[in-house]
Amino acid sequence: MLELARVSNRGSSISQAYSRVRGVSETLCSTLEKEDFGVQPSLCASPPKWHLAHTSWFFETFLLKPYVSNYQIFHPQFEYLFNSYYNGVGNPYPRADRGLLSRPTVDEVFTYRRHVDEALLNLLAAEDHQQPDAIAERVLLGLHHEQQHQELIVTDLKYNFGFNPLSPSYANPLPVDTETVALKFCSFEGGLIETGASTESDRFVFDNETPIHSVYLHPFRLSNRLTTNEDYLEFVEDGGYADSRLWLSDGWSALCSGQLSPAPLYWQQQDGDWFEYTLSGLEPLRKHTPVTHVSFFEADAFARWAGRRLPSEAEWEHVAKLHEVDGNLAESGWFHPRSAQPDPVDLASAAQSREMLQMFGDVWEWTQSSYQPYPGFRALEGTLGEYNGKFMSSQMVLRGGSCVTPSDHIRASYRNFFYPSDCWQFSGIRLASDI
Amino acid sequence: MLELARVSNRGSSISQAYSRVRGVSETLCSTLEKEDFGVQPSLCASPPKWHLAHTSWFFETFLLKPYVSNYQIFHPQFEYLFNSYYNGVGNPYPRADRGLLSRPTVDEVFTYRRHVDEALLNLLAAEDHQQPDAIAERVLLGLHHEQQHQELIVTDLKYNFGFNPLSPSYANPLPVDTETVALKFCSFEGGLIETGASTESDRFVFDNETPIHSVYLHPFRLSNRLTTNEDYLEFVEDGGYADSRLWLSDGWSALCSGQLSPAPLYWQQQDGDWFEYTLSGLEPLRKHTPVTHVSFFEADAFARWAGRRLPSEAEWEHVAKLHEVDGNLAESGWFHPRSAQPDPVDLASAAQSREMLQMFGDVWEWTQSSYQPYPGFRALEGTLGEYNGKFMSSQMVLRGGSCVTPSDHIRASYRNFFYPSDCWQFSGIRLASDI
Amino acid sequence: MLELARVSNRGSSISQAYSRVRGVSETLCSTLEKEDFGVQPSLCASPPKWHLAHTSWFFETFLLKPYVSNYQIFHPQFEYLFNSYYNGVGNPYPRADRGLLSRPTVDEVFTYRRHVDEALLNLLAAEDHQQPDAIAERVLLGLHHEQQHQELIVTDLKYNFGFNPLSPSYANPLPVDTETVALKFCSFEGGLIETGASTESDRFVFDNETPIHSVYLHPFRLSNRLTTNEDYLEFVEDGGYADSRLWLSDGWSALCSGQLSPAPLYWQQQDGDWFEYTLSGLEPLRKHTPVTHVSFFEADAFARWAGRRLPSEAEWEHVAKLHEVDGNLAESGWFHPRSAQPDPVDLASAAQSREMLQMFGDVWEWTQSSYQPYPGFRALEGTLGEYNGKFMSSQMVLRGGSCVTPSDHIRASYRNFFYPSDCWQFSGIRLASDI
Amino acid sequence: MLELARVSNRGSSISQAYSRVRGVSETLCSTLEKEDFGVQPSLCASPPKWHLAHTSWFFETFLLKPYVSNYQIFHPQFEYLFNSYYNGVGNPYPRADRGLLSRPTVDEVFTYRRHVDEALLNLLAAEDHQQPDAIAERVLLGLHHEQQHQELIVTDLKYNFGFNPLSPSYANPLPVDTETVALKFCSFEGGLIETGASTESDRFVFDNETPIHSVYLHPFRLSNRLTTNEDYLEFVEDGGYADSRLWLSDGWSALCSGQLSPAPLYWQQQDGDWFEYTLSGLEPLRKHTPVTHVSFFEADAFARWAGRRLPSEAEWEHVAKLHEVDGNLAESGWFHPRSAQPDPVDLASAAQSREMLQMFGDVWEWTQSSYQPYPGFRALEGTLGEYNGKFMSSQMVLRGGSCVTPSDHIRASYRNFFYPSDCWQFSGIRLASDI
Repeated sequence: MLELARVSNRGSSISQAYSRVRGVSETLCSTLEKEDFGVQPSLCASPPKWHLAHTSWFFETFLLKPYVSNYQIFHPQFEYLFNSYYNGVGNPYPRADRGLLSRPTVDEVFTYRRHVDEALLNLLAAEDHQQPDAIAERVLLGLHHEQQHQELIVTDLKYNFGFNPLSPSYANPLPVDTETVALKFCSFEGGLIETGASTESDRFVFDNETPIHSVYLHPFRLSNRLTTNEDYLEFVEDGGYADSRLWLSDGWSALCSGQLSPAPLYWQQQDGDWFEYTLSGLEPLRKHTPVTHVSFFEADAFARWAGRRLPSEAEWEHVAKLHEVDGNLAESGWFHPRSAQPDPVDLASAAQSREMLQMFGDVWEWTQSSYQPYPGFRALEGTLGEYNGKFMSSQMVLRGGSCVTPSDHIRASYRNFFYPSDCWQFSGIRLASDI
Repeated sequence: MLELARVSNRGSSISQAYSRVRGVSETLCSTLEKEDFGVQPSLCASPPKWHLAHTSWFFETFLLKPYVSNYQIFHPQFEYLFNSYYNGVGNPYPRADRGLLSRPTVDEVFTYRRHVDEALLNLLAAEDHQQPDAIAERVLLGLHHEQQHQELIVTDLKYNFGFNPLSPSYANPLPVDTETVALKFCSFEGGLIETGASTESDRFVFDNETPIHSVYLHPFRLSNRLTTNEDYLEFVEDGGYADSRLWLSDGWSALCSGQLSPAPLYWQQQDGDWFEYTLSGLEPLRKHTPVTHVSFFEADAFARWAGRRLPSEAEWEHVAKLHEVDGNLAESGWFHPRSAQPDPVDLASAAQSREMLQMFGDVWEWTQSSYQPYPGFRALEGTLGEYNGKFMSSQMVLRGGSCVTPSDHIRASYRNFFYPSDCWQFSGIRLASDI
Repeated sequence: MLELARVSNRGSSISQAYSRVRGVSETLCSTLEKEDFGVQPSLCASPPKWHLAHTSWFFETFLLKPYVSNYQIFHPQFEYLFNSYYNGVGNPYPRADRGLLSRPTVDEVFTYRRHVDEALLNLLAAEDHQQPDAIAERVLLGLHHEQQHQELIVTDLKYNFGFNPLSPSYANPLPVDTETVALKFCSFEGGLIETGASTESDRFVFDNETPIHSVYLHPFRLSNRLTTNEDYLEFVEDGGYADSRLWLSDGWSALCSGQLSPAPLYWQQQDGDWFEYTLSGLEPLRKHTPVTHVSFFEADAFARWAGRRLPSEAEWEHVAKLHEVDGNLAESGWFHPRSAQPDPVDLASAAQSREMLQMFGDVWEWTQSSYQPYPGFRALEGTLGEYNGKFMSSQMVLRGGSCVTPSDHIRASYRNFFYPSDCWQFSGIRLASDI
Repeated sequence: MLELARVSNRGSSISQAYSRVRGVSETLCSTLEKEDFGVQPSLCASPPKWHLAHTSWFFETFLLKPYVSNYQIFHPQFEYLFNSYYNGVGNPYPRADRGLLSRPTVDEVFTYRRHVDEALLNLLAAEDHQQPDAIAERVLLGLHHEQQHQELIVTDLKYNFGFNPLSPSYANPLPVDTETVALKFCSFEGGLIETGASTESDRFVFDNETPIHSVYLHPFRLSNRLTTNEDYLEFVEDGGYADSRLWLSDGWSALCSGQLSPAPLYWQQQDGDWFEYTLSGLEPLRKHTPVTHVSFFEADAFARWAGRRLPSEAEWEHVAKLHEVDGNLAESGWFHPRSAQPDPVDLASAAQSREMLQMFGDVWEWTQSSYQPYPGFRALEGTLGEYNGKFMSSQMVLRGGSCVTPSDHIRASYRNFFYPSDCWQFSGIRLASDI
């Protein structure tokens, strides 16, 4: 699956990548009922139908319209209806109303996808276009964009199902994690290191990961695995949600006003026992499974309670670059984090870095870094410059991907970002500390 | 169709009525796509699926559970999910979230309807129950309740379709009204009259129409027909929405804050021309067609601008009782008001009362009367007492039914009620004045 | 003090009335600190300084500007700053921001009052104006307006002091009511009666009390005295605030959302004991004192719990017209309701109507009547027509005046009106029932 | 005025500092009317009376209560009333309600200040206390805290006066700036540098400035002076507020929703001309005066429009450390930024760093850095740890002090912080760029 990472791939291989990635979006929806496609259970969680249409809109807007001279648009209103946030394209249809569109129907959206796919594959097959590199770059961007929405399809569906009193299930039954490795902290020296991604490489990266640049890291420690439900439950039972000293002021206000609930998003207590809604249904809380769906405020408060802190994004990336991208990602099909297991290879190795587990997959790891431009950052030219750069205020960086992230989508330099009160993503905790 | 009006009908005739009325709800939905069943486009406008389930819940809750000893409930969560506002049954599922339930599916809701229908018809067929009159009364109440939701299915669907930028249509093409009768005012003497409905009659009425009681009416005039779009457009073009002197204080505030738009709900202006969304699609504004989807505040301001006032509900009822129930009601299939046409019979008649047109159907007519208990009013016993009585504050009475009201549902004493800023109903204007 | 009631009084007597009434406003503020004059503790409760300025604005706007040809306005911005809600005068300064004006200072507002008083007395002293009746009418209106704001000065100050954790006191110590008369219900026959006030009389009335008109009353009963704290506490302790069956739907929603608290406005519970903030300070709840600061929703729920209902405004007025205006009004200086005491004169009388106590003063009595125009109602001409008429939606009528109402301000036909959730007024409960 | 900077100063010198700083707070209020002391014109802008009381509360809570064994508290409710946000002390009185307290009066608050001052000076004079260093540290913290509130007294008063339609003035007439130096950009090499303040020094710093630590700076340029009104007006007239491409997404949303106005906070346009409210009154917009009261969103959009960016806080501090603390600070008495004037000394100097103007004073300079903990940051122990650390989310750092900052309060390492939409502070713009 290397093709998604390389800009230089053109012609047949990029067409294959296109077809494969586009197909995954539809496969993820293959077991849904028609009714499931249209629901927007909160402002943040868009309907699957919208994701399927918007990702097609992206190819139509940024490839077919500019590069196919005789392209026939599918429907004149779709430019408006399925624009997410690109003001350069026009005023988008209100985000809060995405769940109010019973039309176009699901079938019509699939027809739209077919229409776009056919035109896009024709574009890729044509040998006479003037800007093959620009097209290839945009198609790769479009496919990574599609993968982000694949993650959102599952994440947003979980919100829908998780708050339906009928607790429908989406995934196969989830095995119980019967054990996990012991928590320990690994030390790293830091120093003046390089972080970020190069703009010169032919590997695909988003603009917000560039340029590669120097940062100085003080010596630090990272925990070898993610925080588990058992770890987090100890915080809950110790009164962590009621102790203002542990909380950032905005987090405490969110708790006091009820904007933030005093437990991870999908936890619920019945007769004293804790349950957790997973995409396999409502389940008794699993001790050894990583805690997920916590906000930055909760992650930060937990770390303070534990006498630790969250890692900076540069610290995290520094360690992650020592590892291959591997883990419980979307392809595992669990759609839920799993407990950390000792790596057989690691056991035979003395390298400390190999003791680090779960760096990729399972849950996005909150960092203590706010989402800001790297020194020398330049957004993409034109309207595509709105993709990442305009969100660089008041959000925090998360790293490492999750159990719903496609494996060829994530990398060590990848920067995800959400507001500190957001918790509907598969977001969790890895602890850090100074040395 | 007399059976809906009589409590004493039991056995086969009430069974037939039951089957007929329940069938109408489904017929109204027969051309919908699955996606259309789930959308709640505003707090006031519930999804068709919810209406179909809630009306079944009503029969299950108030007939099957209390009167069928071995009744098997369809699903234990439905008591909660499809309770509208009966606190006596329990805390209802939040009204604002009715559009967030992708499950149960449409098919499952139809299965629920079959389940309830079968049990209910068995109950009606049984000859051994102890309280045949109570059961018949409740079935009639349930059928009138079902008819109210039939009206809501169409009204709420209009909100969904009317605010979808694709402007889907639901009904057949709507003919243009090429003329209407001239506006004139008919005089009535008033005096000490009787209004309301008797609790003793065997005709079905809601509790809020009772008891029959004396009121004193001063002499008054009523307009012979409804206010048309042309009439109302004159008010709009005269700056009616910008003249604070015409408006009640709360209405003016609603305008200034943007809660109320400065035109009827489904009007839109394009390049200087006015259009109106109808269930047949977006259409150029028809001059002779009655204005509809105006709030009480707009109706009241229009009347003040015209040098008139709105009728009181007792005035309206006094005149309506002189007329048969006849007009552009749901069975006409237009689902939109139509212009007033001279009645051939009326032309031959000298009776002033026969000159009154459009008393029933077309649009609900706002009155100047707030919705309050009649002297001596007693709500139904028990939880069913929540049906009407608890809404007797801050709402205004509307009379006469509309183009989406079933014809055997409406009568002269019928009291509908909405908040003064509500405009998503087919609500319009008949003028009145003192003599 | 008859002069306030008669339009025909002109010249010296109206000048005396003017000086007297204007002086009362200032006397009410004579013990305030400068800091107390500026606070607006809620949207409804305006600062004393604003009341003092606005009442002067009224005379300046509706008398000095139109009738004094060479009148020198005091400050050009005051027309804007102290307009309450007269859109005909211009866009008023935002109501919610009345407490944000540290300037003009209190001293400047008193200077403004002097300026207006001098000009107004000169106008009244002049013998050459063209429209002496119109001027006299407007001065009387202005004085009744001033009296309404006198009531508000005390009422709004109570909100300020009542929610200050220091519980400052304004009035003299309040004696404990050690007893009250037993509750009983008096019967009235009703029939076709006349209600309201004549427009022809030379007695001052507001436009909303006119015209006199016929209504038909069914036989009814009224309680002889107001509901006491003891009566109301029984409702509280019986779980009245938690029983949805007792509440109008909007009231129940207000309770569930926290907009309405589950006790009268100034009640607070400490260690199981109930206290009530009065203008004499925080006091243990007095059993025999009338309950006050309840909303319509609470009054209505209490009546339902008691198996009664609230009176209609016509019923109340019919009974009130049998009584002299007398009672615990502002001049008593208690600024709090007091218990009903048997009238020595009443004891000697057989007339049932004389058994009715507390019809005037103590607390405004919620009626079950919404505030609507009487048949044939015509608002005052011009901008003064905004005084009363534009508020005729969604509000309920209260009758009888309260312990902070000036005694020459109230009468049997007087209609006060507030929203059903309002409770910052001295509003209480008299029960009624059908016979 | 060195005493405010040194922890080791004790005894008489710290007493003198205490008296001097406390006196400044009162001097700032010496021309206010009583009415001005109580107004809270927005959630962010507290009343002067509250500032005067809260700063006294700080000394009472953190010095008198813990260190004076027989201290008599002034009033038992003040611990609650004047707590700002220290949850460790208890639940604070609601911030939004600070303007609703007419009591205690201004005089009572001054008496409270006298009470605290006397006790504090006695504490400092005593020679027998056990922890002289801890006390000195806390007194210095309290004095810096008092200085922050001195800045707020003036800033918040400007909000009160600036939004009063009477436009009262507070300061002396403000001279017109007739010229300013030309804009140019100075280059700095960067590299691995040290930033922040040492915890070991005996100079006073806040915890959030520590510890001193290494950061790597890429080469950068800074503008020699602040952005002027003329510079900013060009952006306004070029349609900067209407061009979504210039704005961060949250800023654009704030503009579209009206939360942010399309001009600096105190600008207003009359008949095409721009005016600016200053503490000397409403004035025609001065070209050469630095723009002030812009939010981070506006500063960032302006920089993008200008083809530049904002400096990082480490860049700013690196340059600032080359300069003495000098500039238009509170002691100048202008209470408004002034134009940059060439420094006579600078003209004679070749050192590039000397060409930098206005680094201290005039306006706080927005940086592109979010407010986060420095590596190794440790908050103060106990409740005082709430002073700074808990605000480290979603806020941006500002540097350099303003025209209302006391001159012995500011330093190169000083970190101020506000939300990106805040604009009621004297906040402005210095441009930066990459090399």
